[in-house]
Amino acid sequence: MTAFRYGNDLLIVDAGLMFPENDMLGIDYIIPDFRHLAAQRNLNVRGIVITHGHEDHTGAIQHVVTAFNGPIYATSLTAGLLEVKLRQARLLDQVSMNVFKAGDKLNLGPFQVETFHVCHSIPDCVGLGIQTPVGLFVHTGDFKFDNTPVDGWPTDFAKLAEFAGRGVMALFSDSTNADRPGWTPSESVIDQAFDRVFQGADGRIIVSTFASLISRVQQVAWVSERYHRKIAIVGTSMQDNIRMAVNRGYLELPPNLIVPIDEAKKMPNHEVTIIVTGAQGEPSAVLNRLATGRLNHFAIQQGDTVILSAHAIPGNEETVHRTVNRLFQRGAQVIYDPIEPVHVSGHASQEEQRLMLSLVRPKHFVPIHGELRHLNQHSKLAQQVGIPRERIAVVENGTELIFKSDGTMTIGERIPGGYVFVDGSSVGDFGPAVIREREELGRDGVVMVNAVITAEGGHVLHEPEIVMRGFMDGAGRDALIDSAIQTVRRILTQHNGGRKSDQVKDALSRLFYNETRRRPMIFAFINEV
Amino acid sequence: MTAFRYGNDLLIVDAGLMFPENDMLGIDYIIPDFRHLAAQRNLNVRGIVITHGHEDHTGAIQHVVTAFNGPIYATSLTAGLLEVKLRQARLLDQVSMNVFKAGDKLNLGPFQVETFHVCHSIPDCVGLGIQTPVGLFVHTGDFKFDNTPVDGWPTDFAKLAEFAGRGVMALFSDSTNADRPGWTPSESVIDQAFDRVFQGADGRIIVSTFASLISRVQQVAWVSERYHRKIAIVGTSMQDNIRMAVNRGYLELPPNLIVPIDEAKKMPNHEVTIIVTGAQGEPSAVLNRLATGRLNHFAIQQGDTVILSAHAIPGNEETVHRTVNRLFQRGAQVIYDPIEPVHVSGHASQEEQRLMLSLVRPKHFVPIHGELRHLNQHSKLAQQVGIPRERIAVVENGTELIFKSDGTMTIGERIPGGYVFVDGSSVGDFGPAVIREREELGRDGVVMVNAVITAEGGHVLHEPEIVMRGFMDGAGRDALIDSAIQTVRRILTQHNGGRKSDQVKDALSRLFYNETRRRPMIFAFINEV
Repeated sequence: MTAFRYGNDLLIVDAGLMFPENDMLGIDYIIPDFRHLAAQRNLNVRGIVITHGHEDHTGAIQHVVTAFNGPIYATSLTAGLLEVKLRQARLLDQVSMNVFKAGDKLNLGPFQVETFHVCHSIPDCVGLGIQTPVGLFVHTGDFKFDNTPVDGWPTDFAKLAEFAGRGVMALFSDSTNADRPGWTPSESVIDQAFDRVFQGADGRIIVSTFASLISRVQQVAWVSERYHRKIAIVGTSMQDNIRMAVNRGYLELPPNLIVPIDEAKKMPNHEVTIIVTGAQGEPSAVLNRLATGRLNHFAIQQGDTVILSAHAIPGNEETVHRTVNRLFQRGAQVIYDPIEPVHVSGHASQEEQRLMLSLVRPKHFVPIHGELRHLNQHSKLAQQVGIPRERIAVVENGTELIFKSDGTMTIGERIPGGYVFVDGSSVGDFGPAVIREREELGRDGVVMVNAVITAEGGHVLHEPEIVMRGFMDGAGRDALIDSAIQTVRRILTQHNGGRKSDQVKDALSRLFYNETRRRPMIFAFINEV
Repeated sequence: MTAFRYGNDLLIVDAGLMFPENDMLGIDYIIPDFRHLAAQRNLNVRGIVITHGHEDHTGAIQHVVTAFNGPIYATSLTAGLLEVKLRQARLLDQVSMNVFKAGDKLNLGPFQVETFHVCHSIPDCVGLGIQTPVGLFVHTGDFKFDNTPVDGWPTDFAKLAEFAGRGVMALFSDSTNADRPGWTPSESVIDQAFDRVFQGADGRIIVSTFASLISRVQQVAWVSERYHRKIAIVGTSMQDNIRMAVNRGYLELPPNLIVPIDEAKKMPNHEVTIIVTGAQGEPSAVLNRLATGRLNHFAIQQGDTVILSAHAIPGNEETVHRTVNRLFQRGAQVIYDPIEPVHVSGHASQEEQRLMLSLVRPKHFVPIHGELRHLNQHSKLAQQVGIPRERIAVVENGTELIFKSDGTMTIGERIPGGYVFVDGSSVGDFGPAVIREREELGRDGVVMVNAVITAEGGHVLHEPEIVMRGFMDGAGRDALIDSAIQTVRRILTQHNGGRKSDQVKDALSRLFYNETRRRPMIFAFINEV
């Protein structure tokens, strides 16, 4: 999410989410912390422009429209994907959704937004030229320079060159692959890889990809038709997206190509392709249920070929590899990059990033969309093409940049805040402290002690109860519980003043550490009656 | 760990550990489950041969010698690293440590072991030719075919060819990089990358690598000398290993090259190199403490260049990237692959694996050391060089292979068991059930309820106590605790039979889910007096 502000007028670009890292236990997703901005008075939200339909650009839309209440602008496919989300959040009838085509101009108060087509790994992506009273700003969205894109529609070089001719105050450009040398391969190389795999396969072919990767579905349709295979689709989100993309003209499927999965199961194996979601190894997604034998629709059989047509999102590598190993275990052949180039990145590599800088020739440069290491590397590339270091802003999320009519850029304050965790229906009602507690609970487990004693004499009324979770099982467990009960009884019957619950905790902590070298969290409920 | 058995005679090759995956909460490391083997009577353990000094080949040595009590055989550097471990475990004076040189022959009962040198990413690695009454077996250890190794000592091609001439019953070969095309670059390319980085750096240079990567330290020493820098070493394990490697002749350091860190801090920045451990981003290692400002010895300053001369172990990518971002945040330039090739893999890629197969020309092939996906891919490579599929055993850990004098191989049973988790001093006294409980604790946190009521009338004697951990903080927390107390009071005073603690759990579970869409683990201690 990037916000452009002129006076009280606000233009928001994108409303994405971040996926939690592995050690953010139990977090569903993370959204940007825009509370400081939303709390300002008299803001006139002229538009929320969404550049394309991926989760990291759309996933926080329900939070953003609730906080900012401005009209949404998106191309047709992106609008379709946003509507699915807003319907789920019961917000669809409360928003104003405006559909535009790449090349359209949007007049949003002081912001004259010229949209232009860019290639990425989902159709109908745009970048933005934003003309303001202080100058022209170019925001690339997510992009690559694919010269042979699957939909035949390359990135709009001419428009970028035209911006350069008019003079660009600042370029905001996608940094995802800033540490990758060279040029990202075209989506078309996948066609050749698919062809090799389809030619060599005797059994069923199962293709796993992202539900939003519409162009990949087109490629699977083409190669399946060529090799006389019908396609079954498993997974509701994938089915919904394909239906929507066909309706809106983003996907051309020959008649009778799609068959229900139950029909496909009766057909000869070499006439069947199955498309499934879950290429990230998510525990509840179709591919993982398939790999663990928990899918109702069909099961892996000897001779199946599974194609993983997606890269693991950083942090998901382990889960994806585990899924691959399980598929092998069940007798499938699994095809994944680097065995065949069945997926390519949707983001520009270094040469393309240099080309973008050379085409737009901005006065200032702001690398966006990447970790700090990517922004730094992108800054180095910009310096190589001649932008002085002092005109580059390598800044973290939440930092204000101030541009003035005299052509200067100043790096402002970083606004307090950071990320907002979303878990269940709770948005931001807990922070890093809760995450740390979850880590601590998960590390060595917990032990709980419950006892009732008399207030006067320290007479133990019930046998102390010990409950363990995540601490130990196996042979030593019962013996350790017995020792723990002895320890608790001893302390409860001692007459030494002091809080009994603290004494119990200390004694058990020592006992457990001596016996196991581990330190579970201990909770003691000692009731005096 | 691989065990070769002939009658009651046993030969063990390697004694490694596995690092836990991200979701194995709180586990220190994992060792092979050899309990079934160790429980057999009359075993005559002829030798425990360790091929090289990395953790995944040495890390379980204290568990293996305790269970099997056989003599250890290793080359000098490997023996040095094993001795450090055995001394820590207070086992050094109880084992028989036998040092050999690559090329030596070990007569271990029915096993005539011919050792031969292989290149890897630590010096003094060997593979093994094991002559037995049923035939000759070749075990590669971890290897690559480096034609320009840093220590000038290439893999022993001649010995491999000689084995082929004698006829090899089965080859056991390293599968780590079986999905990587081509040939792994030589360690020497790192020299050139180091040279470029050292030439361009004005400030201090900090090199982070594995404590066992002795040849990397040699390379840093050479380039530092060339650019007139002194070297300070931070990290006890690194200091110990360097001292040991110098003493045993594996490392040549010019006199006065090494200086204490306190002296280095007083020298001009461009005359200083610092070597640190922790290239995996481990929370307590030197590099991470440096990245988070918690290191006592020195701090990152503007102008420092940090070189990460190690690849992230699969599953560690996220942690390493976070460390890199933090170093950038503190003003360092960070150099890592792919920005410069400052690290290369120590394992053979596909062409080298094919070459190994072609050199050894085994009758049977057993891909080892890799996940199932790597073993499968390695099997495909073997079929490409002409080994029939039925002579290849793609098997998971714990599977018995039976070779007979008539030249046959049979795949036997998979022995019950799997992996043994080590956490603190507990070895295998808990299994996957405890890990699942830890996951559950960590997912949504816990809530504990404690109350005392009268047995007869259900009269509540103390205000019920509610304790939350890892569930929520923020604004809604106190209100939710109030609601929870109301709910508990209501249930405790109802006269409806049934177990009060179950009723409390059910009611709170509903309350929390309705309010937060989350399901913490709930424990209710309702005491009747």
